[in-house]
Amino acid sequence: MINRIMTALSDKNEINGTSNISSPQQDVTKLTSFLARARFLLVATILAVIIHQPAADADEGMWLLDHPPRAKLKNDYNFDATDAWLKHVMHSAVRFNSGGSASFISADGLVMTNHHVGSGALQKMSTREHDFIAPGFYAARREDEVKCIDMELNVLMDISDVTGRVTAAVTPKMDFAAAQVARRAIMNTIEQESFQATGLRSDVVTLYEGAQYHLYRYKKYTDVRLVFAPEKSIAFFGGDPDNFEYPRYDLDICFFRAYENGAPARIEHYLKWSAAGASDGDLVFVAGNPGHTDRLHTVAQLEFTRDRRLPERLDELRRLEVLLRAYSARSIENARRAQGELFGVENGRKALLGELAGLQDPAIMSTKRAQETRLRAVVSGENGNPWDDIRSLTKTEDRIFTDLGLFERESAFHTRLFDIARTLVRLADELAKPNADRLREFRESNLDSLEQHLFSEAPIYNDFESLRLADSLSFLMEKKGGDDPFVQKILDGKSPVERAAELIGKTKLSDVAVRKALAAGGRGAIAASDDPMIQLARLVDPAARKLRKIDEQQVDEPMQQAYAKIAHAQFKALGPDMYPDATFTLRLAYGTVRGYQEQGVAIPPLTTIGGAFAHAKEHKNIDPFCLPESWTKHQAELNPSVPLNFISTADIIGGNSGSPVVNRAGELVGIIFDGNIESLVLDFEYTSEKARAVSVHSRGIIEALRKVYGAGQLADEIEAGDVKR
Amino acid sequence: MINRIMTALSDKNEINGTSNISSPQQDVTKLTSFLARARFLLVATILAVIIHQPAADADEGMWLLDHPPRAKLKNDYNFDATDAWLKHVMHSAVRFNSGGSASFISADGLVMTNHHVGSGALQKMSTREHDFIAPGFYAARREDEVKCIDMELNVLMDISDVTGRVTAAVTPKMDFAAAQVARRAIMNTIEQESFQATGLRSDVVTLYEGAQYHLYRYKKYTDVRLVFAPEKSIAFFGGDPDNFEYPRYDLDICFFRAYENGAPARIEHYLKWSAAGASDGDLVFVAGNPGHTDRLHTVAQLEFTRDRRLPERLDELRRLEVLLRAYSARSIENARRAQGELFGVENGRKALLGELAGLQDPAIMSTKRAQETRLRAVVSGENGNPWDDIRSLTKTEDRIFTDLGLFERESAFHTRLFDIARTLVRLADELAKPNADRLREFRESNLDSLEQHLFSEAPIYNDFESLRLADSLSFLMEKKGGDDPFVQKILDGKSPVERAAELIGKTKLSDVAVRKALAAGGRGAIAASDDPMIQLARLVDPAARKLRKIDEQQVDEPMQQAYAKIAHAQFKALGPDMYPDATFTLRLAYGTVRGYQEQGVAIPPLTTIGGAFAHAKEHKNIDPFCLPESWTKHQAELNPSVPLNFISTADIIGGNSGSPVVNRAGELVGIIFDGNIESLVLDFEYTSEKARAVSVHSRGIIEALRKVYGAGQLADEIEAGDVKR
Repeated sequence: MINRIMTALSDKNEINGTSNISSPQQDVTKLTSFLARARFLLVATILAVIIHQPAADADEGMWLLDHPPRAKLKNDYNFDATDAWLKHVMHSAVRFNSGGSASFISADGLVMTNHHVGSGALQKMSTREHDFIAPGFYAARREDEVKCIDMELNVLMDISDVTGRVTAAVTPKMDFAAAQVARRAIMNTIEQESFQATGLRSDVVTLYEGAQYHLYRYKKYTDVRLVFAPEKSIAFFGGDPDNFEYPRYDLDICFFRAYENGAPARIEHYLKWSAAGASDGDLVFVAGNPGHTDRLHTVAQLEFTRDRRLPERLDELRRLEVLLRAYSARSIENARRAQGELFGVENGRKALLGELAGLQDPAIMSTKRAQETRLRAVVSGENGNPWDDIRSLTKTEDRIFTDLGLFERESAFHTRLFDIARTLVRLADELAKPNADRLREFRESNLDSLEQHLFSEAPIYNDFESLRLADSLSFLMEKKGGDDPFVQKILDGKSPVERAAELIGKTKLSDVAVRKALAAGGRGAIAASDDPMIQLARLVDPAARKLRKIDEQQVDEPMQQAYAKIAHAQFKALGPDMYPDATFTLRLAYGTVRGYQEQGVAIPPLTTIGGAFAHAKEHKNIDPFCLPESWTKHQAELNPSVPLNFISTADIIGGNSGSPVVNRAGELVGIIFDGNIESLVLDFEYTSEKARAVSVHSRGIIEALRKVYGAGQLADEIEAGDVKR
Repeated sequence: MINRIMTALSDKNEINGTSNISSPQQDVTKLTSFLARARFLLVATILAVIIHQPAADADEGMWLLDHPPRAKLKNDYNFDATDAWLKHVMHSAVRFNSGGSASFISADGLVMTNHHVGSGALQKMSTREHDFIAPGFYAARREDEVKCIDMELNVLMDISDVTGRVTAAVTPKMDFAAAQVARRAIMNTIEQESFQATGLRSDVVTLYEGAQYHLYRYKKYTDVRLVFAPEKSIAFFGGDPDNFEYPRYDLDICFFRAYENGAPARIEHYLKWSAAGASDGDLVFVAGNPGHTDRLHTVAQLEFTRDRRLPERLDELRRLEVLLRAYSARSIENARRAQGELFGVENGRKALLGELAGLQDPAIMSTKRAQETRLRAVVSGENGNPWDDIRSLTKTEDRIFTDLGLFERESAFHTRLFDIARTLVRLADELAKPNADRLREFRESNLDSLEQHLFSEAPIYNDFESLRLADSLSFLMEKKGGDDPFVQKILDGKSPVERAAELIGKTKLSDVAVRKALAAGGRGAIAASDDPMIQLARLVDPAARKLRKIDEQQVDEPMQQAYAKIAHAQFKALGPDMYPDATFTLRLAYGTVRGYQEQGVAIPPLTTIGGAFAHAKEHKNIDPFCLPESWTKHQAELNPSVPLNFISTADIIGGNSGSPVVNRAGELVGIIFDGNIESLVLDFEYTSEKARAVSVHSRGIIEALRKVYGAGQLADEIEAGDVKR
């Protein structure tokens, strides 16, 4: 899966405002996306021109919606990307703020995304008595649709360039610290002005790593209800073994409905359903929110990612995977509680392993070295030596990396309750400051979104929180040494297990009313609180803030300035037709439905419903290759030749999960849910040789809804684009 | 499980001669036991006297068979440990050289051990077509018994004190390097003389960390055949979740038969079966081979174990666990291939986590600090300051720790085929030297055992070897950095995956004839070999040997001398009634069958067959809580009140798995297979509060053999102690 794991909630994006505090689901995201920073980006096409001399069919690029590759589309595919076409696609695309993509597919607010994107919401609404994940769900009647907890959907309304205002605020005479403060201030201010003027969610997005700043305005939907989810066993058929593989046979879909004022939202722009769906050789477009790419990272940065960042994150993920698996194996209820996070962890582990394998491949690194050598020659003399600056900045980053992870990114306190406590502690401190001076996630224009998460009624299980907190306190002790004085303060004379049990047992922060009272009480209430989790967050916060400041002022800001130098030189030398690295904002990718060769065997581009049954049989129907009863029961009615999944050369990455795949006419032909193993290298380098985006086919969806799930009404709405009732 | 993981094949024991090259099973053992070194041992009872003032019921101690706690047994239990009783138990006890314990239970060479001790052998004899692990096995007729591959059983025949000879060879004037060489030489020589004189396997065992050296002579059995194994699902009922837990319901047993000259070995000393078995309150004895304890480690050593050794090993184990689980999930055959190693890894992970939790508990560490402070006072002035010496030696160890793991302990080359290659390379070099100068594992008296493993016909699966080698080469790259010149030489310009595929694909070492030819050809054949794995082993060996030399001469030898100073002072001050830390040699423990309190709930000492069915039902019969069909089918015939498992206060640790549990009369009342979670702390400190050894009950075994497995003939032999036919 290429899902939420690799998406929005990287530290940088938090600061850019796409997120606020993290939900339980997001804890995992945070853990993994720490390394998945969309931090230093340049333009891949330029390098591609320099190095690759790409074939005409190189369908590279995650393009800005207001800067599409019109000429290339015209030249390669004779396709005219008109303003009207682009606007329709842009307004039909939906972002799951929890870290995925989606689209409107009916005038009545029907939203389609992946099951694995929606599963965070399913997990939050599930209880011991009623699980929404394993057995699935279908609301045949509107009144049976179930409201989600703390969900936020975003629809991009417009984009404007604010580069001039941002760069004017940061003068060349400023040192890095002053520059970082000034940049943050102007971004917070622009967003607040925009929010006050329009009422829309307003995010300043850093593009081309500081060469450009765009203001993205979103319409928000926060009343979102579950309509349909298939059983997990067909949504994630083949499980971890098949994840990131192809051929594939997954019904990885989930339907929600956006509401406004208690009624289904009336939607002007939604995608019409394609009855035929995708066929071999078709041109297709993907409109979604790729979370993060590293394509233009310098070699020094890539080496740091290879030797430090990925290995450490993978160790953390494996640690969590083993912990959660052992917990899950103890009882059915444990397994239910942990399933969301466990899926995220396994998915992240497999994705990052693929990325690491790419960076450990000398062929890829030598390509990157050659690219850099040539690029250096192109821009030499114009801009000093930003490459050497970046190499030296990675040394600073290396020095703070472990502590930053432990204290600022909360690797040492892996529980939702600590995250809540810290948010409350910081909220009190930050609200006392003018908007311009606040940490990005506490800027005025983001407070609504932040509070929605902070006051979420999502269930919290003390045993599950204790388990993870104890393990992460043990992790802290391992990393810093058991005799470290700060560690000893944190543990308060107890073992990690005892300390975790005490903190989780005594904190009252599971109660949303307690959170609200503390938030309302401001600094006085925080200072007076005897809640042990609040006290722990207060104990840790000065150290965490100090590390964050070093990171922002001694790593990020100078790094950004160095990358901006490279980007500006490129713009000047090679023109403006380039796309920035991914930033969990809306992008347009395109490609062809096409198979590939694997060790001499041709992998066809489409799989079928019949193939799913064959795949199960081949594995003797043993979990995770066991089709749900609903499918085996209705096998005779299903048309085995209906396509279920298909692949294309579109340029995607984590965060694109749930993206609509549309044809020339802008009709929906499928929905992205994965990339194959060979696509994981897209983080660094586009290739259409074997890398493929994997989608569910529109025909397979309708076939399953009608014949397996008896969801004719839903299928009717989808096919008609509206409800007749 | 407290099994092989924690047993023989630590580096020190290899050097002491209990092992040779490692089997696939042993690769795991090596990995985990690296940290489980029985290196620096002192005497726990003395400290116990100083610190604990133990209650009369403190059943502490893993006693030498020639130095049992006669007075204490007489005083606490009114039991006379006579020479005859001790001799009978000693000769009835059997050591699985692969890392577990066992006993003779019939005059016809019948050997009982745990399923999880025997499973290494089961794995080696299994094929895609015939798995011995999941479905189990029973040879009703003698001629159906299946010969095991490369198995070696040891029976301790006598013990003699050679301390004088060893210490005389190492003079005070020698520096550490010379001392290490001299010590190795005299040990190799003593063993070879003994072997030549008696034909018995002869191992000099370092006890009290160098204060004493004893020569252990063993009768070896290498023709060993499988008689009976239950299904894995009942042998390991409850799986990883129940492992190290209590109450428990496992039939963790396995029967083999020792042969000599093609016929069942006639055995004089075997254990008679107790019809009644163990009852609440009974005094019981355990005769087995505890692998390793750290009880008398100094605080500096324990801190190193807590902050460095255990965390790193756990990261390696988790890494392997995730790798093997993902591989296993892909197909049923994969799962079969990986099951032995995966069990070992999961077991090791759970055991080490328990140990780490102990060391991360400030209560335990402050006890250890207090003990050390008092001990320092007792011996102060007599012996310099060995504690400070040890603290400084841990710094040297810290410096070489990672590299030693990668290159000498083969963490970077996790495949049986590299291990074979390295053994061949070293064999050629070592055989060219006089016996006294050889690395311990290549001493003349050990060559038979070494060759048995080296020329083992155990199956090797290229995909499985490639998987692990690729992952460990990636691990190497992560640890040393991708640009490290030595790493680049090892990878030869390829990615870890490609390099592993090349090495495994091209080496011919899977063929035992090739190994034999290379071994016979000596240094010339090795030098001329174009086998890529041999070439890799040659490339790595100089660096590995250099690290080993530093470890032996700059860490081990001075560490040993420092600990010996402490031990001698203790002997002098407090008398000789003490037991050494565990060394995977035969020890006698004792204790009482007794329950304990867990959060106010009394845990009774015995479980029953009926309890097993209830436990399965409670977990809805979902794997690993699913009883095999043989049990559910015969449920009606089984007596639900027959005891299945029981616990006692006997002092055990990993390596004791399979140890016979005997009553006052020397009759077998059960077989050790686990310790509870609370017992994992026994590595550092004995406690009888909650720590318990877990055994299968003799009555449960007979009940299952007769009523579930129709193995009446086997049950008859066991109960009679002989075969009537």
